[in-house]
Amino acid sequence: MIRKEKLEELKSLIEQLKTVEVIKREIEEKDKFLKSEAYYFKLNNGIIIPREKLIKGSSDGSAVIVMPVLETKEVLTVIEPRVFTSLTVGVGFPAGYVESHKNETIKHAAKRELFEETGYATEKPLIDVDSFYQDEGCSSALNHLFIAKNCFKKSYQHLDSDEVVKYMLFNYEELFELENLGYIKGSNSKLLLEKSKKYMEV
Amino acid sequence: MIRKEKLEELKSLIEQLKTVEVIKREIEEKDKFLKSEAYYFKLNNGIIIPREKLIKGSSDGSAVIVMPVLETKEVLTVIEPRVFTSLTVGVGFPAGYVESHKNETIKHAAKRELFEETGYATEKPLIDVDSFYQDEGCSSALNHLFIAKNCFKKSYQHLDSDEVVKYMLFNYEELFELENLGYIKGSNSKLLLEKSKKYMEV
Repeated sequence: MIRKEKLEELKSLIEQLKTVEVIKREIEEKDKFLKSEAYYFKLNNGIIIPREKLIKGSSDGSAVIVMPVLETKEVLTVIEPRVFTSLTVGVGFPAGYVESHKNETIKHAAKRELFEETGYATEKPLIDVDSFYQDEGCSSALNHLFIAKNCFKKSYQHLDSDEVVKYMLFNYEELFELENLGYIKGSNSKLLLEKSKKYMEV
Repeated sequence: MIRKEKLEELKSLIEQLKTVEVIKREIEEKDKFLKSEAYYFKLNNGIIIPREKLIKGSSDGSAVIVMPVLETKEVLTVIEPRVFTSLTVGVGFPAGYVESHKNETIKHAAKRELFEETGYATEKPLIDVDSFYQDEGCSSALNHLFIAKNCFKKSYQHLDSDEVVKYMLFNYEELFELENLGYIKGSNSKLLLEKSKKYMEV
């Protein structure tokens, strides 16, 4: 356990650095997916710092990532174009942006993305694994990790016009091999894989 | 071990989805940190998809993250304004962008960021923990995780004009408490904390 005095010291540093005032500099208005907003932030200690915030479409880009597990214990992975990576294709878990402009909940987003990308669904409640900031320094995107157990094939895929998604089943242990072989290479899938260990019987 | 046929099936799906042609749509030229580039990508299966790529400053934003461990086994953490997060301040590990426009190596970047943000250094070789894509869908940023052992205080901090960084020492076990308490909340630090386990005697 962290000593109380140490935690108080940390809290006092945090207090000093807290934002107390936000001044807008520039908001981009244009027909692109990636946009940015520029601000100045006045901290509690009086220092003023400039920061830019990444915007994706009509939201901050908060995403959900779901590890779908079947009754057979196999795990569903998706294979997608990842055009900016060295392989130009990535292996990972079903994922997508929360439709916050439609007031979508994160659990709804997780089930929706799983269904749209793979046609799989579950009747069980999702396991809430963790959440984290995707890019702390210049985004408010808060990503959420889920495990969906007892998944079954319910339908065909329902993909957007610019989505290309293939899928494959692997055993849980094989996922770590795929990671070691360099096929699973994205932060979201890697973090979900690590954090899933305590929920899966290895 | 993954069966050979299964790995072949995966490789064939990857082959179908590989990028075979890149067509530039629009490159932003402006005096901002966050910019984007728009492209069309022709995949091996004939499908053409639009994608936008995030640019940070004069690079793709590839970063290094370092867990500095002292001879006492204490771990150095940094406390910084994270103005877009709910707490507006974050706790994590020293990190920063690789200066690829200066042909900087990732290990040099890791040692430089550690030194600039904290004044700490090490004479030991860095431990190469893992690498991952920060935001696979719209960035080529490849982040690298390191552990720096036998760190010692060498100097004062050397911060950029818009950097505000405090630091504190914690025991390794306390880091997991800080994570559970919600102070360590960024993907980079969380992934480094998870992946560090096999290099640290817990």
